[in-house]
Amino acid sequence: MTESAFDAGELRRLLDGRWAEVRERVREALRDTALPSGDHLDTESHRALTLEQMHALVESGIPELGFPTEHGGGGDPAGSVVSLEMLPGNLSLMVKAGVQWGLFGGAVVALGTERHHERYLRDIMGLELPGCFAMTETGHGSDVQSLRTTATYDPETREFVVHTPHEAARKEYIGNAARDGRMAVVFAQLITRGESHGVHALLVPIREATGKVADGVRIEDCGRKAGLNGVDNGRIYFDHVRVPRENLLNRYGDVAADGTYSSPIGSSGKRFFTMLGTLIRGRISVAGTAGGAAKLALEIALRYGDVRRQFEKPGTGEEVAVLDYLGHQRKLLPALAESYALHFAQQELVAALREMGSADERAQRELESRAAGLKAVTTWHATSTIQTCREACGGAGYLAENQLAGLKADTDVFTTFEGDNTVLLQLVAKGLLTNYKDQFDDLGTLALARFVADQFVGAVFERTATRSLVQRIIDRAGEDDILDRGWQLKMFDDRERHVLDGLARRLRKADRSNAFEVFNNAQDHVLRAAQVHIDRVVLEAFVGAIDRCPDEATAEMLDKLMDLYVLSNIEADRAWFLEHERINPRRAKAITQAVNDLCQQLRPHAVELVEAFGTPREWLTAPIATGAEESRQERMAAHDRDGS
Amino acid sequence: MTESAFDAGELRRLLDGRWAEVRERVREALRDTALPSGDHLDTESHRALTLEQMHALVESGIPELGFPTEHGGGGDPAGSVVSLEMLPGNLSLMVKAGVQWGLFGGAVVALGTERHHERYLRDIMGLELPGCFAMTETGHGSDVQSLRTTATYDPETREFVVHTPHEAARKEYIGNAARDGRMAVVFAQLITRGESHGVHALLVPIREATGKVADGVRIEDCGRKAGLNGVDNGRIYFDHVRVPRENLLNRYGDVAADGTYSSPIGSSGKRFFTMLGTLIRGRISVAGTAGGAAKLALEIALRYGDVRRQFEKPGTGEEVAVLDYLGHQRKLLPALAESYALHFAQQELVAALREMGSADERAQRELESRAAGLKAVTTWHATSTIQTCREACGGAGYLAENQLAGLKADTDVFTTFEGDNTVLLQLVAKGLLTNYKDQFDDLGTLALARFVADQFVGAVFERTATRSLVQRIIDRAGEDDILDRGWQLKMFDDRERHVLDGLARRLRKADRSNAFEVFNNAQDHVLRAAQVHIDRVVLEAFVGAIDRCPDEATAEMLDKLMDLYVLSNIEADRAWFLEHERINPRRAKAITQAVNDLCQQLRPHAVELVEAFGTPREWLTAPIATGAEESRQERMAAHDRDGS
Repeated sequence: MTESAFDAGELRRLLDGRWAEVRERVREALRDTALPSGDHLDTESHRALTLEQMHALVESGIPELGFPTEHGGGGDPAGSVVSLEMLPGNLSLMVKAGVQWGLFGGAVVALGTERHHERYLRDIMGLELPGCFAMTETGHGSDVQSLRTTATYDPETREFVVHTPHEAARKEYIGNAARDGRMAVVFAQLITRGESHGVHALLVPIREATGKVADGVRIEDCGRKAGLNGVDNGRIYFDHVRVPRENLLNRYGDVAADGTYSSPIGSSGKRFFTMLGTLIRGRISVAGTAGGAAKLALEIALRYGDVRRQFEKPGTGEEVAVLDYLGHQRKLLPALAESYALHFAQQELVAALREMGSADERAQRELESRAAGLKAVTTWHATSTIQTCREACGGAGYLAENQLAGLKADTDVFTTFEGDNTVLLQLVAKGLLTNYKDQFDDLGTLALARFVADQFVGAVFERTATRSLVQRIIDRAGEDDILDRGWQLKMFDDRERHVLDGLARRLRKADRSNAFEVFNNAQDHVLRAAQVHIDRVVLEAFVGAIDRCPDEATAEMLDKLMDLYVLSNIEADRAWFLEHERINPRRAKAITQAVNDLCQQLRPHAVELVEAFGTPREWLTAPIATGAEESRQERMAAHDRDGS
Repeated sequence: MTESAFDAGELRRLLDGRWAEVRERVREALRDTALPSGDHLDTESHRALTLEQMHALVESGIPELGFPTEHGGGGDPAGSVVSLEMLPGNLSLMVKAGVQWGLFGGAVVALGTERHHERYLRDIMGLELPGCFAMTETGHGSDVQSLRTTATYDPETREFVVHTPHEAARKEYIGNAARDGRMAVVFAQLITRGESHGVHALLVPIREATGKVADGVRIEDCGRKAGLNGVDNGRIYFDHVRVPRENLLNRYGDVAADGTYSSPIGSSGKRFFTMLGTLIRGRISVAGTAGGAAKLALEIALRYGDVRRQFEKPGTGEEVAVLDYLGHQRKLLPALAESYALHFAQQELVAALREMGSADERAQRELESRAAGLKAVTTWHATSTIQTCREACGGAGYLAENQLAGLKADTDVFTTFEGDNTVLLQLVAKGLLTNYKDQFDDLGTLALARFVADQFVGAVFERTATRSLVQRIIDRAGEDDILDRGWQLKMFDDRERHVLDGLARRLRKADRSNAFEVFNNAQDHVLRAAQVHIDRVVLEAFVGAIDRCPDEATAEMLDKLMDLYVLSNIEADRAWFLEHERINPRRAKAITQAVNDLCQQLRPHAVELVEAFGTPREWLTAPIATGAEESRQERMAAHDRDGS
């Protein structure tokens, strides 16, 4: 609708990035195979449809992408993460796929050994063995190290006895459990020779091939949820269920036939976090899919805002497109800019996941921390962006046919599952604090063990190629221009460093007697440290992406988006910058004005910019966003002008 | 669970306020008649159940409360608004009741005359005549003055011909239309003798008693929505539908048999806004119900947070209740304090509604403006609070059985219907700007007619009893204590005045040629002016309520809640206070610390404070919030302590 100097194709190529081929493959698969959302169906029909669609997905060959080549997979876990973020139009399917191939299959790959891979992976890929990932318990969701389910080794029969000791230890919200799952990876306290060795994972059959629930297992249906009702979540109880010794996923801990425990990792805490770390893919997938859902919501709202008119412009006889109102632009365009920023950060994270196999432990922890932080930031971004889009579409946004209701309901739990966001941000902060670890050494490990977890050894500033680039830009920074990239980067850098230094100083007051109180009183500061860290990481990914962009006009457009991302972030947080005299009131006002100006400059390109994400066209079904509606609106406008 | 010095009964009495009797009557009615939410049902069953429940509501005698005594009603429209806010546990029922008795019935009362009252009111109260309020069109939702439906008078037959001239002029999202409605109050451009007199309302039959759709009427079903699926929303098209001349609701405009138009109000714009003004009850009801939904959500989340434990407190062997974490308190307790503030503001508004009959035009406009502003602020409060409560309850919050999913989905459209919040805030700001009207006079009315609407003549500072009290407190204000009530009130006062002055200065630049651009560039400033005005109004209502509180211990507790409301508001907006040198960075940090301290002081009373709202116990069905769950949690904790 508006002429643009930049080439949308170039932009799409940059956004598609390293996994362009995977993205294109999903787009093609969706052209061949309709996988419509079943949100309008009753629970049972919705679940049945989703299972059918899972089989159709198997046919497409996409799910096998993430599995080892030696067992028939594509050997590209990072690519498989990218493929999931292309399914925002059917999130029940995405989540059920994530449970089967990401969590259940991923756990067998990562925690199991050859005997498990050989025996199960093909059936898992082909969906002949639908499975569950049974970690969360009613009583312990965030604090999974304290799970109460037990797996006690019986050397007599060479079996593990899996048991739910009380109501609160039942497995809770388990996807695939209520209807389809036949096997579960069960996380339980491993006990052998009377000694507990911490949480381990075992394969436990929960249903027979006929669908009958296995003996000793009890399954309850979690019933209706806010969304994702195509996924059959359930509760599982085990009553002294026996499984062969070989069912232990024994990569990081094993029990010999006589009951002797062995592990390549000495500390049980470290062992547990190593096990969790291998499951990082789930968090990265959730972030990717949340981002995908936000992009789809933005596309619907921006397309509608581009043509929807309301109130006459005085003296013209024409009604104003709602996206021409500054207030409407301010709702949607900073969110669009943030979607760009998070897209590039996610791209960087997925690339790092690919390198993970060869990485050292420090890099591995860094990756885990970043995955945790990006998952929190991106899922909150999705929740608030989809909400804003719903409101920006008025009553139309409330109708199911316009998709925003479903997007909102389905993604709402993303801030909770695969790690509650608040808990994840604390993990990020604790990782950052390990740089200050020597300051806490006089406390010993006892009191602070849970607070400054030694499993996180992330560095505040990584030595990446982008980081050098960022440092060079900062070194050239001017003082007086809020559009100067160096000044912007310095603001983010500086904020992170200052917040973290202050936090470390504050926490030094903790000793054995008051550790909980000192940490709890600083919890808002802890969460903030993580937040500003992730903001900086995201910004630098954006810098890196623009640096990679070969086309000047595209880079210019991205520069504007980045300005909007940075300045609306600083604007929202300008109290901090004022309090710490990084900006003065005059500059704060200039920043608000610049955000307004950028919104108005980007407005003519809004639809092109959101289309460039390349969300598969099959997902865009909302009448308010599709061509049919556009042309109807045009007819309406013409009609209105002619008089009624 | 914790001892408190204050008397929860006293607090309840204060909160119940002037309409305590109505509240108690609804509580009793609910004890006698179960009206459970039908959220779990398919659309048709849900609609059927909701209609049944409407009849049960008739039996309770509550709906007739708002109707004139001379036609068998209770003569208490304000009380009927209060009664609706007591239905947060079944919002489909609340909304359908609001459509039937508030909007449809209310329009017949307010816009009709004796002939309509005599003929229809008893049937409306008794639900023998289910009806619709057909204002919104697809093409015109916010800009209802530009509706396209026509009602053309035909003197030959003494009928109005009601017609939908094109697709975009169809009536959209109309409650009660898809299934149950038999009559509609239709808003249309009234044309007689070839001249248009602006929007008027007429009664148009849309279905026969058999349920068959009336000749010339076409009705489409809006289908599934994000929530409120017990309400049958539809689209209505009229194809030259003829109704007798007497069907015009003719209080503010009439057409004689020969086609002569007459009205007690000369200007068609003023006439239109007078008609809209009489329908103010709808907005006030939505605000009340949004507030009620937020209270119910907070009760669920606070009860759960009070007993849900996660992570061991180092060295104690005991797990920490999640509401003992500062981060969790910060999510929920400022929202609780704001719920208190908004409750008192709503109470004041409802009391003003009662006085309305006798009020002068200026007071009437003031009331409309306040209703618009409180509707916007309260519905956004509900949206964000319910979202926060959902997240604060983790996975449990996502299950339908725990109610938060339904509360979220049902209330989401509250920010849109009965006036889009953004549009409403602009109306509030324009009302405030009329105090500056002389500054704009050189522009003439042409260019600015739509922007500084002369229908709003609100005063910035009303001369109420509370206002004198507030002024006395401000006059005693100290400079140095952020807990000093005078200082707090001065901050709110001062902010409002400064923001509004700045806006007026900015808008003075507008002339005929650039009026749209000047106003549009300042739209963020316009919205902010309205927001800080409403914040001040809400705060003063809180001051008034504490002043009325006869019990000292209760007043002390309310003082703490008010401190938390004020200081978390200032904290969130502290950038402004810093920019304008109302506070310095040291004070800004002290405010954050004070919010933390207040959260910790209020935490032991959280459950009592939310119970004091007196939400009918029948609505509290979430297992995580009810006693059953509490005792299970206690069993779990005991069990865990004994070892597993």
